[in-house]
Parts: sequence; C-alpha cells; structure tokens
Amino acid sequence: MCGPRLKALFDAGRLQPPSQAPGTDEPISRRRLLQMGAVTGVGASVLAATGSSAAAAGRPAARGRRGVVDLTYRLTTDFPTFFGDDAGGARSTLNDFATDGFYIQQWQFQEQWGTHVDAPGHFGPDAWKVDQIPARNLVAPLAVVDISARAAVDANATVEVDDLIAYERGRGRIPDRAFVAMNSGWAAKRDLGNDVYRGGAGFPDLNFPGFGLDAAQWLIEKRDVVGIGVDTLSLDPGNSADFAVHFGFLPTNRYGVENLANLDEVPARGATVIVGAVPWQDGSGGPGRVLALT
Amino acid sequence: MCGPRLKALFDAGRLQPPSQAPGTDEPISRRRLLQMGAVTGVGASVLAATGSSAAAAGRPAARGRRGVVDLTYRLTTDFPTFFGDDAGGARSTLNDFATDGFYIQQWQFQEQWGTHVDAPGHFGPDAWKVDQIPARNLVAPLAVVDISARAAVDANATVEVDDLIAYERGRGRIPDRAFVAMNSGWAAKRDLGNDVYRGGAGFPDLNFPGFGLDAAQWLIEKRDVVGIGVDTLSLDPGNSADFAVHFGFLPTNRYGVENLANLDEVPARGATVIVGAVPWQDGSGGPGRVLALT
Repeated sequence: MCGPRLKALFDAGRLQPPSQAPGTDEPISRRRLLQMGAVTGVGASVLAATGSSAAAAGRPAARGRRGVVDLTYRLTTDFPTFFGDDAGGARSTLNDFATDGFYIQQWQFQEQWGTHVDAPGHFGPDAWKVDQIPARNLVAPLAVVDISARAAVDANATVEVDDLIAYERGRGRIPDRAFVAMNSGWAAKRDLGNDVYRGGAGFPDLNFPGFGLDAAQWLIEKRDVVGIGVDTLSLDPGNSADFAVHFGFLPTNRYGVENLANLDEVPARGATVIVGAVPWQDGSGGPGRVLALT
Repeated sequence: MCGPRLKALFDAGRLQPPSQAPGTDEPISRRRLLQMGAVTGVGASVLAATGSSAAAAGRPAARGRRGVVDLTYRLTTDFPTFFGDDAGGARSTLNDFATDGFYIQQWQFQEQWGTHVDAPGHFGPDAWKVDQIPARNLVAPLAVVDISARAAVDANATVEVDDLIAYERGRGRIPDRAFVAMNSGWAAKRDLGNDVYRGGAGFPDLNFPGFGLDAAQWLIEKRDVVGIGVDTLSLDPGNSADFAVHFGFLPTNRYGVENLANLDEVPARGATVIVGAVPWQDGSGGPGRVLALT
C-alpha cells in the first residue's frame, strides 16, 4: 500500500523530519520531546502524574465537573470471540520507524468483535446499517441495570421486566431516548481468560448473562430507548438457542452494544453515554469507542 | 470465520428466529416490525418523521437542549487516500441473510484512513499509541479556526499563529485541554471527487490546507491543547515536503484527527468534541467516530 512509495521519497531525501524545533537552536531531542510532554512506555504514568504539560499530564478536564469513563475494551487480537476461535481480527505492520520513519498498521477483522455495535441491520434485513444510525441516537442518557447478584449464581441470568421495574423504583422512569446497559459483573471475568469470560469454548458452548426477550420487548413498547448494551459477548444470554433478542430488538431500528467495560464505574442513572460507532459502509455494526460522561 | 459454523446450526434446525413476538399471536411480520418502529431504505426518512416510536422517529434528545453534530465521514471503500490509490480499505460479506439468516461484513484497512485519529505514536516512536491516549483527552472543548477565505485562494493555506490570535480576539482564550480544528472549507470538495478533495492525484501531487508548524508549536507552548484536527487529508498542508507538524506536534503526546466533516455546522467556540478513537491495539491511530455536542 502506501509504505513503499513514501519510503522511496524518504530514501531519496525528499522527506525529512524537521531538523530543529521552532524557537530552539537544537534538533528535536528526546529531552526536548519530554519537555514538551512526550512520554515513553512505563514512564507514561509517571509523567502523566508529574509532567509540566497539563494536557499530557491529564489534569481533570476543564469543561466542568464531568468525568469520562471508558466503557471500551482495548481491541487486542486475542479478544474473546463468540465462536471461540479468538480470531476476530489480525494486524500487521505496514510502516515502521526503522524502515519508513513513521508507523502504520493494517487490520483485518469481522465486524462483530471487541466492544462493538450491533447495528439494527445485523439481524434486520431492512433495518439501519451502522452508517444509517442517526448521530443523535448515539448520545443518550445511560441507565445501568445491575443483575450481578443473580448472575453470580446463574451464568445465563437475564435482564427481566421485573429488573427494569425494580430499577425505576426510587430512580424514576427510564429517560426517553435512553441507552439501557446490563451490568452482570462480567467485566471481572475478562482477566481470567477467554474461556472464563465466554463461559465455555465457544458457540454453542457458552454461558454468560444477557437480556431476556420480554425485557427487550418491554423497553420497545413501554419505554423509549435508542439501544441496549451488555457487559458480555451477546445481547442474548450464552445459552440462547434462538437469538431472540437479536431477532426481536434490532430490527426495530434500535441498536445494541456488546462487550461493554467498566460499568461498575458509572452511576445507575445520570451519566450520558456516547456510542462512538464508526460508520463502516453498510456495516452490521463494528468496533467503536464507547465513553460515558458522568 | 464464524459464518459456516453458525450456518450449519441454522441448517440443522438448532437456531431459529423466534416464531412469534411476545404478547402477540402471530409471527413477527414486516407489518409488526413497522409497528415496532422498524424502517426500510427510502421509507426510513418518512417513518423517522412520522413514526410512533420516538427513538426511531428521532425526536430531539431529551438530555437537554444540546444537539449532536456528526464530524465523521461515512467510511466507504472509495474514501480518498493520501497516496491516491484510494485503496485504504476493502470489505466483503462474511454472512448474509439468504445464507445465514444474519449479516456480518469483514474488513481490511490501513489505520490512516477515513475520518481517523493520528495517534502521537504515528510519528513519535516513544509516544502514545491510540490505545494509550487517556479517555479524558478524547472529550474536549472544541475551538474551530476558520481559514476558508484564505484557503479559497491558496489551496495550501495554513493555520498560522496570527489566525489563533485573531480567533481569541473577541472569543477569549482557547480553553485549557481544548481540541483545535481547522475549518478550511474543504468539506465542500468531498462531493466533487477524490482528486478535487486531494488537490491532485496523490502524494506528492497534493494541494490542500493544513496547520503551519509555528501555529502547532504555539498551541503546544502557549496554550494547553489535547489535539488538533483538520478538514483535509493531513495535519500538514498538501504541498508539505517535510511533514513538519506530524513530526513536531504528535510526539508531544497530542493527537490529530484528519478528514473532519461538517465543521461549518458547529460554533467556533462552545461545543464539546468527542473523539471516539477505537483503541486498536498499538494503533498508529485509526478510523473513529467524532461527534460534537453543541
């Protein structure tokens, strides 16, 4: 792809990094970069805490009292897959510093991988693909329904209508245009290996919590939601034989998000979720960045 | 990948869509899906305007008076590339409705493609890869600096220190931890073909606006920014021979975003940008979803 051609120009002396930083009389040195806020590997956290650059140092955002909680897992090539091959995606280096002077990777992946969006069109032939979901549907009040106590004793526990009713008791009605996320406590299993997170070797050997169809239907008919999300591999529980929520919920032009992280770190009510769905052309969904503003 | 195995289970009758929607006595019909808010192709906009489901109908978000502006181009396989091959990514269908009962695509792409993040590590060997950028740096006050008048007469116009000083006159100081975007009016060229947007056939035949190194350096040293963005293919102008801004700005652990859309639709000051950078493992950056809250 692009590497060889740019490399040829570097080699021909056509392209060179600037020999000196503006306003200095010495080449950009590692020390200079550090002064400007650059950090390295292990040093990153140290400099993040002590560096003189507020941006690099990670001072709390100036935009208000809001915090940002990352609901997205790092998209690593060993990310557990539904089917157990753990081959959802692969990467290779296209350009590297030694050869080209800069760095780019290339990727190959299937859309249902990592912390990802299930577009309505994943199971609804006539429903929105990921690039058709209106941007305003990607910013939503976040309601987190915790079923972790039940999930601790039943790996295939599901969000039920009673959970939604109980959620609203004391917290008030689920806001209009909300995004409702299940917190089953499954994030704690991510560090224990892919088979533990998956609850088995891969489809159909799967055991993890999900939404029940009645609850999904209740959210469609009794409330007004833009989407639902889970901290597991699928909107349906691991032992589902019929993908009932995929078939029943998505074709209504409401989307799903799977493999949400850090739901323990957001309040049950009051945060705003930003579902950064990449608008992959005609995508069934795909990896995205999901953040919560608390 | 996963298709054949799931298909086999469908074929074996192991997996079936639910035969009926809960609470109804008939199979899920197209009519029923429409009642629930599903929409199709051209019908989408009609139902979006008139449908009974507020979520599908796209009522203004209930979370406040805020609007959401999409700063992201649809990621189509013909998206213009810096190198002119227009082969930044390719897709194929992994599962389709006719064969498998559901739909998934697979993709191959290089990270510097579409509306995408330039991670600090794209040009800084020791700087943050995309999965190391702190989440809080991805939510920032958005400052839009308009140089479109100058860009209309000079395709390789650059944001200069004077533009930043002029921006602050009347609007006040660029907020701490801001993201500063250049609006050069280049979005209008996206509909005119890839060569028009690129200002040439591809590197080194390129002509489009970007940041000047002095301005980038001023933002590093005199202000406190988390990143900069452009409505063109590169942080540096098209005729740059040295990638000065890539080499001078990114290694300071500040990120870039290229190919921003719709900057005309956000205020020069006062919006918040959410840079939905997918945390690709060790990524030099990569496609993401960039939204502005106005």
